[in-house]
Amino acid sequence: MPAFSRFTPLISALPASVPFVGPEAIERNRGLMVKARIGANENGFGPAPSVIEAIGAAAAGTWKYADPENFELKQALAAHLGCQVNNIAVGEGIDSLLGLIVRMVIEPGMPVVTSFGAYPTFNFHVAGHGGRLVTVPYVDDREHLDGLMEAVRRENAPLVYFANPDNPMGSWWDADSIVAFAKALPETCLMILDEAYCETGPAGATPDIAALIDRPNIIRTRTFSKAYGMAGSRVGYAISTPGTAEAFDKIRNHFGMNRIGVASALAALKDQAYLSQVIGQIKASRERIAAIAETNGLKPLASATNFVAIDCGRDGAYARSIVDGLMEHGVFIRMPGVAPLNRCIRVSTGPEPDMALLEEALPKVLKSL
Amino acid sequence: MPAFSRFTPLISALPASVPFVGPEAIERNRGLMVKARIGANENGFGPAPSVIEAIGAAAAGTWKYADPENFELKQALAAHLGCQVNNIAVGEGIDSLLGLIVRMVIEPGMPVVTSFGAYPTFNFHVAGHGGRLVTVPYVDDREHLDGLMEAVRRENAPLVYFANPDNPMGSWWDADSIVAFAKALPETCLMILDEAYCETGPAGATPDIAALIDRPNIIRTRTFSKAYGMAGSRVGYAISTPGTAEAFDKIRNHFGMNRIGVASALAALKDQAYLSQVIGQIKASRERIAAIAETNGLKPLASATNFVAIDCGRDGAYARSIVDGLMEHGVFIRMPGVAPLNRCIRVSTGPEPDMALLEEALPKVLKSL
Repeated sequence: MPAFSRFTPLISALPASVPFVGPEAIERNRGLMVKARIGANENGFGPAPSVIEAIGAAAAGTWKYADPENFELKQALAAHLGCQVNNIAVGEGIDSLLGLIVRMVIEPGMPVVTSFGAYPTFNFHVAGHGGRLVTVPYVDDREHLDGLMEAVRRENAPLVYFANPDNPMGSWWDADSIVAFAKALPETCLMILDEAYCETGPAGATPDIAALIDRPNIIRTRTFSKAYGMAGSRVGYAISTPGTAEAFDKIRNHFGMNRIGVASALAALKDQAYLSQVIGQIKASRERIAAIAETNGLKPLASATNFVAIDCGRDGAYARSIVDGLMEHGVFIRMPGVAPLNRCIRVSTGPEPDMALLEEALPKVLKSL
Repeated sequence: MPAFSRFTPLISALPASVPFVGPEAIERNRGLMVKARIGANENGFGPAPSVIEAIGAAAAGTWKYADPENFELKQALAAHLGCQVNNIAVGEGIDSLLGLIVRMVIEPGMPVVTSFGAYPTFNFHVAGHGGRLVTVPYVDDREHLDGLMEAVRRENAPLVYFANPDNPMGSWWDADSIVAFAKALPETCLMILDEAYCETGPAGATPDIAALIDRPNIIRTRTFSKAYGMAGSRVGYAISTPGTAEAFDKIRNHFGMNRIGVASALAALKDQAYLSQVIGQIKASRERIAAIAETNGLKPLASATNFVAIDCGRDGAYARSIVDGLMEHGVFIRMPGVAPLNRCIRVSTGPEPDMALLEEALPKVLKSL
């Protein structure tokens, strides 16, 4: 069917793509049912009971738009983080914030530095604004700080993406290394420090908020999708200087936040006891996944996130056959997209019934290959 | 506080602005409490009880991302509208879809045709992408179809925005006139036919879906924010040819939908009996607002929407003083932004307690001026 004939050249040249195929689409396309949903780094331990209660309390008020200034949420976040309200911008998940940041900085042809195999949705936004990806290989399954810095300088890049802890490998750097990197970065390069998984990392892996809060070229992004168990609520936030944070107000969808989602985030933030408990469950689940991997002769990588990358010891095709094979048993997982990372599969933490399904299915799949 | 030094020239030149100040901000800034929230064309009759129930049922599942293909919702919408699934694109409210459409079509400096005083959020997106607004005055408080067509041809514009029924005036055109306009439009001009308020219009004011479904240069936008009473849920959709609808997949935030919001929309769509009932309440409330206006010597305009524009007979400053004065009584309303429309105030329909507050406050305010 024909499309409108006068989309911009940039849009016309883009493919209609989705960065990730959802488990629902896999179910539809393959006629299978997902029994263990441990592929999208969602949090199967779920949101706090207090969050579920807050959703119920907010339900009847869904006829009202959310406050376009997100004042109450920003205030709560500032108090929680120990910064000012104007250090924060709120958006519909980190994905949305990434799209806005790329749009703020990138004109067609400009170089954007990221790691080869890092977050595909960031790359999707870069492509969508015509940026030119400059990728740096992982070293020892970690994003390569020196390599990223070298690429930024060589290309005079205006934007660099770095996730800590990392997705899809689960690896991390210590706070001191990250702060040193951020401070050494040219002020003409904006760093996205994606901390989607910061809550589940070890002590010392996340820089203090104060350490980078005065740097206009650092934006840290965080979310309620992972440790807080609210991926479907679409609440993310960015932390930067007031001047940089204010730039979001120039182009964001001011009425884009779901009102119940905002109420959920406020409730989640208040319930730090539940968060601590879930973090404990996530850590135990990481060990459970690692043990399952080892029992099957595979090598789990150390993880600071709510998932574990497992080295299957062969190539991407082999890992892919494990991913596909597990789905035959109703176990939905994912894997990194490029070599050499794609020798691994990636399994999200989750409750014991999911782990039991994985434990049962994995040896069957491996045996069948 | 300094901002990042290398935002694009377009971003650097934009103001940090909000298209509408929310009632929460008015409360904070003026130290007043909103008692009657009838300013943002929300629907105070609220969502269906079945929707509230669906929210409760979906609450615990908020740990999962929504299906990035929005398959189930698109299927339900297609069945409801009598079109195909691939005629539909789903987004976080019409505002989000408008932003994507502008981005698909507009490069800096390109002309965009709209009516002078029409939806400010559309203008916000045009500015955000560097477009040049070409505005056409309303005639008799209606958007001027012939004038819009003339402007499109004169400017060779790639994009025209037209709302039917219209916001902020509540006026409308009959379906035949709109279809004739759409068919006469150069195929090099994309028409956004914004039908946010279509459910509350009179018979014959909304073209059949079939009438325009084969035209790649027409995108119709609709929402669950108005008649369905779910503004806070952020669920909007676009209807076009498969080719044009697919373009959204090139740049949209695939995981942007709130999962509970999607569940709410599915429930709302099923409950057409409730929708009919609310539409009846909205129509009765329009008459109530008109009667209050007339009692106070003001002139209500005929409306096809969930609000009524009221001609206060003088200039924008006078209307502004009424808006501000009503807020002193806890009655939150809004008004059009430019002359001659801004001789009016704009009051959203709502339940009787809100109407009673308006009825009580308006004569006091008028007397005080």
